[in-house]
Amino acid sequence: MPGIGHKTAQRMAFHVMGLTKEQAQDFAKAILDAKEKIRCCQVCQNLSDTPVCSICGNESRDHKVICVVEDPRDVMAFEKTREYEGLYHVLHGVISPMDGIGPEQLRIKELLNRVGSGEVKEVIMATNPTVEGEATAMYLSRLLKPMGIKVTRLAYGIPVGGNLEYADEVTLSRALEGRSEL
Amino acid sequence: MPGIGHKTAQRMAFHVMGLTKEQAQDFAKAILDAKEKIRCCQVCQNLSDTPVCSICGNESRDHKVICVVEDPRDVMAFEKTREYEGLYHVLHGVISPMDGIGPEQLRIKELLNRVGSGEVKEVIMATNPTVEGEATAMYLSRLLKPMGIKVTRLAYGIPVGGNLEYADEVTLSRALEGRSEL
Repeated sequence: MPGIGHKTAQRMAFHVMGLTKEQAQDFAKAILDAKEKIRCCQVCQNLSDTPVCSICGNESRDHKVICVVEDPRDVMAFEKTREYEGLYHVLHGVISPMDGIGPEQLRIKELLNRVGSGEVKEVIMATNPTVEGEATAMYLSRLLKPMGIKVTRLAYGIPVGGNLEYADEVTLSRALEGRSEL
Repeated sequence: MPGIGHKTAQRMAFHVMGLTKEQAQDFAKAILDAKEKIRCCQVCQNLSDTPVCSICGNESRDHKVICVVEDPRDVMAFEKTREYEGLYHVLHGVISPMDGIGPEQLRIKELLNRVGSGEVKEVIMATNPTVEGEATAMYLSRLLKPMGIKVTRLAYGIPVGGNLEYADEVTLSRALEGRSEL
């Protein structure tokens, strides 16, 4: 398990030994339940225990905007900001020929279907600012633009509270490029 | 001295002991020279050993754009990007009422004089994305805008090569706000 070393593993094992029989059964059931009940939302492909997740099913959210992310964890990061009102689409990876991941392994067909339904006005590419994330964003934007959709990309720049002195050259050039009028 | 602890200080002291007399004199002279000869550039207030620094004196640079930074170190950070072609203005600090630093302690008058000369078309606020840096940028933009100058601010956002999952909420909202069309 990630983040668990020798010592912690031993401590956890002994903790399990110390459980009552019922507690151990509950614990085992919780693990099986998590594996069995959590599926991908039919719409946004995010993890969900219902066929349509709570975000896609929420009528008060803006169904005209879709934010495309790599991973369910990115959805959680955006939800924590409490700023974004639109929907998501989880690709479950990025195009990475080095790892043998092509567009067909990602949930791109599902995204095109959603966009094709006509309600969507803007797609925000929120893949990570890495080489693969960029390539995926470019690939998708080329597919989506001919459909008459506005395709945008997250801003690159200096993180809030950061320090120019410690910013790397590429970030600094991007921040300069992307400057906006005050 | 910053970054020098007990052990390193001792090592350096013994190194000085081991120098020849000439070497020690050269070393002492270098320190005095640094203190004596390095002055602020008359134009941009950056550190320089000539009355006008090599950046301000360079005719091939774009004299219509001024990038306002807090510190000479920020100039070095921008120069490393090799992307920026304009001039700089070093404030030598930011407005910080908590530390008793007001606008009159900074090199703001010099900036207004430069802008007043008429050649400048754009001023880029490149103070750090901290509370004080922001306040200083806003203060300056209110002084400069009535002079008919375009005032811009560095982009906030995700640093290049970063990861959405580890971005803080404020940065993520700013990246979302500042998104640009692909």
